[in-house]
Amino acid sequence: MKMYTEMDQNELLSLKASLEEQFKTQEAKGLSFNMARGKPSVAQLALSTQLLNIVNSESDMRTALGNDTRNYGDWDGIGECRQLMADMMEVKKDNVIVCGNSSLNIMYDTVCRSMVMGVNGSAPWCKLDKVKFLCPVPGYDRHFKITELFGIEMVTIPLGEDGPDMDLVEKYVNEDESVKGIWCVPKYSNPTGITYSDETVKRFANLKPKAKDFRIFWDNAYCIHHLYDDKHDKILNLLEECEKAGNPDMAYIFASTSKVSFPGSGVSAIATSKANMEYIKKFMTTQIIGHDKINQLRHARFFKNLDGLNAHMEKHANIIRPKFDAVLEILDRELTGLGIGCWIKPRGGYFISFESMPGCAKAIVEKCKQLGVVLTGAGATYPYGKDPQDSNIRIAPTFPTVEEMRDATEIFTLCVKLASIEKLLKNC
Amino acid sequence: MKMYTEMDQNELLSLKASLEEQFKTQEAKGLSFNMARGKPSVAQLALSTQLLNIVNSESDMRTALGNDTRNYGDWDGIGECRQLMADMMEVKKDNVIVCGNSSLNIMYDTVCRSMVMGVNGSAPWCKLDKVKFLCPVPGYDRHFKITELFGIEMVTIPLGEDGPDMDLVEKYVNEDESVKGIWCVPKYSNPTGITYSDETVKRFANLKPKAKDFRIFWDNAYCIHHLYDDKHDKILNLLEECEKAGNPDMAYIFASTSKVSFPGSGVSAIATSKANMEYIKKFMTTQIIGHDKINQLRHARFFKNLDGLNAHMEKHANIIRPKFDAVLEILDRELTGLGIGCWIKPRGGYFISFESMPGCAKAIVEKCKQLGVVLTGAGATYPYGKDPQDSNIRIAPTFPTVEEMRDATEIFTLCVKLASIEKLLKNC
Repeated sequence: MKMYTEMDQNELLSLKASLEEQFKTQEAKGLSFNMARGKPSVAQLALSTQLLNIVNSESDMRTALGNDTRNYGDWDGIGECRQLMADMMEVKKDNVIVCGNSSLNIMYDTVCRSMVMGVNGSAPWCKLDKVKFLCPVPGYDRHFKITELFGIEMVTIPLGEDGPDMDLVEKYVNEDESVKGIWCVPKYSNPTGITYSDETVKRFANLKPKAKDFRIFWDNAYCIHHLYDDKHDKILNLLEECEKAGNPDMAYIFASTSKVSFPGSGVSAIATSKANMEYIKKFMTTQIIGHDKINQLRHARFFKNLDGLNAHMEKHANIIRPKFDAVLEILDRELTGLGIGCWIKPRGGYFISFESMPGCAKAIVEKCKQLGVVLTGAGATYPYGKDPQDSNIRIAPTFPTVEEMRDATEIFTLCVKLASIEKLLKNC
Repeated sequence: MKMYTEMDQNELLSLKASLEEQFKTQEAKGLSFNMARGKPSVAQLALSTQLLNIVNSESDMRTALGNDTRNYGDWDGIGECRQLMADMMEVKKDNVIVCGNSSLNIMYDTVCRSMVMGVNGSAPWCKLDKVKFLCPVPGYDRHFKITELFGIEMVTIPLGEDGPDMDLVEKYVNEDESVKGIWCVPKYSNPTGITYSDETVKRFANLKPKAKDFRIFWDNAYCIHHLYDDKHDKILNLLEECEKAGNPDMAYIFASTSKVSFPGSGVSAIATSKANMEYIKKFMTTQIIGHDKINQLRHARFFKNLDGLNAHMEKHANIIRPKFDAVLEILDRELTGLGIGCWIKPRGGYFISFESMPGCAKAIVEKCKQLGVVLTGAGATYPYGKDPQDSNIRIAPTFPTVEEMRDATEIFTLCVKLASIEKLLKNC
């Protein structure tokens, strides 16, 4: 197979004509697929159906400590659910606060609290002339939306296969006092699927922030979301590493069961140092009397422990692995050797990140849309929705069926080819 | 019965000696009752047990519109639950956003958002030199905690039997641009149990705020929490009245099912104008993808409609009415005519508010504690926990049994008598 970049104008034009024929054929089919968001499929949701029965009118509604989950109390979560989330997050129960249904909400609240009130006694960020967050890219659009909403300046940091460019991270964090935070998805990263290396985690823990109120926002969203039984990525425990490095309060870890049980009806948690927890407590106990403890009880009784969670996640993996495999197989068959795109085969998480030739991502997404395939908007994986290279596209294979993913990926590769040729012809 | 205030020193001393005997007798019993917080009793929680079964593994998990409640979507709540909460709040469904388990959390978020971002385009409150909230007193301690946390200055407004002193409210709101909000519990007020008159509501709606970003925080926590079948208080619809008065965006209404279904596992909602909803949407959709829709489905299917809610609240009333009656009967029998305290007989809500002689509330609460009866801390019903008269005590009769409430109220009245005599003797 000849690289597109090595073709002359005539070759490109002839190929373009044939691809446009295929495009018309596809257009006539009037298909409709959605690969835009990381949504579990109906088959995945069905895995947790028994969660709905586990707490019922016959149940003892008391926690192991005897507290009635139906009434007020336990602002930081019931003990058994704190333990479950601690096990899932690989931290100690004493460092965990179990919250409501959304870890995004905890992150928003954490940023918002820092804006209005500062961090453990520091000046409120809203009183400062400038506040910056580092944003490894490509990254999670909803993180960037939070910082954008609060007027926090976002500084992009390239994300490699071992994590963010730590030379750059160290330079910014250790030298610029206005840098107050960094967004990280350390395991099975959204969207590239990479996992931070031990060295990366250690360099994070050993940062010497110029700002005392600098915090690492460690969104461990995919901590147990493996795709393969035998290839589980592992990351070092950031809280422990930070403590060893003399930075005990530098990290917030977030996680939820949104993609374990039900999106919107799961439980979420934050894990952090005792000092940070004390500070959070002051605000959280004013904000809310307590979170949904009956739902916490459901989760604790249904999953029981880490083994229960892992066994459940294997069932998820069995459902979604074939979808990832289908996408990867077709990408490989259709695009390898053409020089018009690359991607990483993820070992977990919810996404495949596709890197097109510069200046093609928007055109590819637009073409896919014409053929009925909805992708995450091009640019969404960058702050302000602006991908300077216009090259990153996030593919979310979980929601459609395997067959739909095949059809959708065929369409996707067709659009990649066509958009790339159009780009190359423009440059001729 | 002679008024204590008309007794001479000898009479007071002799009565004191006999009351101190009774105190010792009670002390020896070593009782323990908690009347501190508005917690439903176990019997009340049992009323909602079937709510735990109504959505189960056999259920159709889709909303009437066909959305799967188990997956992402419906940031503003599922239609049937928005309708249920709208009926409960006596507003239109289109004005309702159903949120998580806590209306306090919505109030906190609303204040917090205004601090960081302003209100519908106004300057963020955190950028202003001074922000004030009006606080009708006695009031709800958790409201005051929120404003205190954000450094908002609290101005007390006397609360009468028809609502807050509206002359004062109008003076402050219409003349002082730093007055940005007022906390109201308009129906079966916490703690006095009074309901705002139609005139009060109309005067609220017809305010001419000096500050464009002034908002009424209308916490309709006890909207359907009647104590008597035949004596339901009614309030005018504030949203409608505000619209009529040309102030469509001036009000936020809050409510929850915390004391309908389960505290901590209910659903909450905010009702407000379309313009306010649009502004809230911008923030809420960044904060969270959606609230717990399965729990919304449970509530919608269990209560069905306003009739279902009202029938359920009658069962609550049947459980708690005898407790209120017990307290009121003993207060009446023991204290009427003594000139040492007064109270209002509430027609709904969760509290009885007791007004002692000035300077006695703390002493009464302390004496009760010695006898094993825990009351809400004296002063809690005032901003900063400081009751300038030291006279208001909130009694929460719902959690203990009727028998316990009898015993606790006997102890309470004994402590009122003793503290009053000690106060009178000091003044002799």
